[in-house]
Amino acid sequence: MKQFQTSLTIPTPGPGLIDITSPVKGWLSGQPLSDGLLTLFIRHTSASLTIQENADPDVLRDLQDFFARIAPRAVPYRHDAEGPDDMPAHIRAALTQTQLSIPVSKGRMVLGAWQGIYVFEHRDRPHRREVALHVIGA
Amino acid sequence: MKQFQTSLTIPTPGPGLIDITSPVKGWLSGQPLSDGLLTLFIRHTSASLTIQENADPDVLRDLQDFFARIAPRAVPYRHDAEGPDDMPAHIRAALTQTQLSIPVSKGRMVLGAWQGIYVFEHRDRPHRREVALHVIGA
Amino acid sequence: MKQFQTSLTIPTPGPGLIDITSPVKGWLSGQPLSDGLLTLFIRHTSASLTIQENADPDVLRDLQDFFARIAPRAVPYRHDAEGPDDMPAHIRAALTQTQLSIPVSKGRMVLGAWQGIYVFEHRDRPHRREVALHVIGA
Repeated sequence: MKQFQTSLTIPTPGPGLIDITSPVKGWLSGQPLSDGLLTLFIRHTSASLTIQENADPDVLRDLQDFFARIAPRAVPYRHDAEGPDDMPAHIRAALTQTQLSIPVSKGRMVLGAWQGIYVFEHRDRPHRREVALHVIGA
Repeated sequence: MKQFQTSLTIPTPGPGLIDITSPVKGWLSGQPLSDGLLTLFIRHTSASLTIQENADPDVLRDLQDFFARIAPRAVPYRHDAEGPDDMPAHIRAALTQTQLSIPVSKGRMVLGAWQGIYVFEHRDRPHRREVALHVIGA
Repeated sequence: MKQFQTSLTIPTPGPGLIDITSPVKGWLSGQPLSDGLLTLFIRHTSASLTIQENADPDVLRDLQDFFARIAPRAVPYRHDAEGPDDMPAHIRAALTQTQLSIPVSKGRMVLGAWQGIYVFEHRDRPHRREVALHVIGA
């Protein structure tokens, strides 16, 4: 049994979902193991992770609209020093994932045919988001 | 240290929560390890996983009502080609889990007394949902 | 490769977020491994886990307000025998996490600078919540 770790830096241009399936696959394919468990962990509280449909980009836009509606800016938050987009960002992060673990079989994540892994940026300004990767297996 | 994997196929008759604790326990009990970490991963984006109370079935009905209220059909979604139940299904999946990991001790998942593991089907039509299982331990 | 498990008991005085980063770190630092994967699993369905900002306590209050607004008591739930705070508690737990896994590097969780690990108590009365910890690594 072996384990490997790295960290991906994902530049985000502003609010939205960024498909990181390809860089994750790329790193995994370079690790000398066939079967195991891959974990992604985003080191932030105003951006998050989610697995969503990768076929129709409208799904991603509808998701963004939903989270804008459910956690709106036009609420008198206590925490507002970092701007009106900050507290809604924390809420949207709480409602999605900070971490995802995906089994690996024969060198590949067992993602379904239509599943992509996304960083969900909730802040207005561009950011550089760090996603820690860990895989354990044989 | 050893690891084992399989895949469960869960038929779903339509929207609702299906208790899969028993088949997961069944598979785990057949694996030659005592302690470790079990991971469940659902290979879909319009059905999801959740751990909920397994005592009063009204909890499951109230949960369904809640998700129907919070992610309703009567919204003009962009993504509507697959029917009015499709985009709400993606949203409900984003709000719950695609993956769950549960420590295993003395051959058993450390679930609380009232915790059950559920597949949460969000689509109207019956489906066959695949849940990948992975366990690592000794 | 080695693995270790324990269970933390977290007393909760009522609704709110309780920072458990320190006891988790404390336990981890006593385990003889440097790199691996740490998993937290809460054995309840009316309290949950979340990773949130640990800098401004207003973030935690705003989060509580949000979940009170999104899953209110003033709804005619079927499941009401345990009091008006019970079904909203199950909903809030479903919307957050039952489990979190965090990579460990050089003896430390790879948490971001502003990330804390919280037990999110959703019930009115004080409780004692059990959080199972599992770490695997070398």
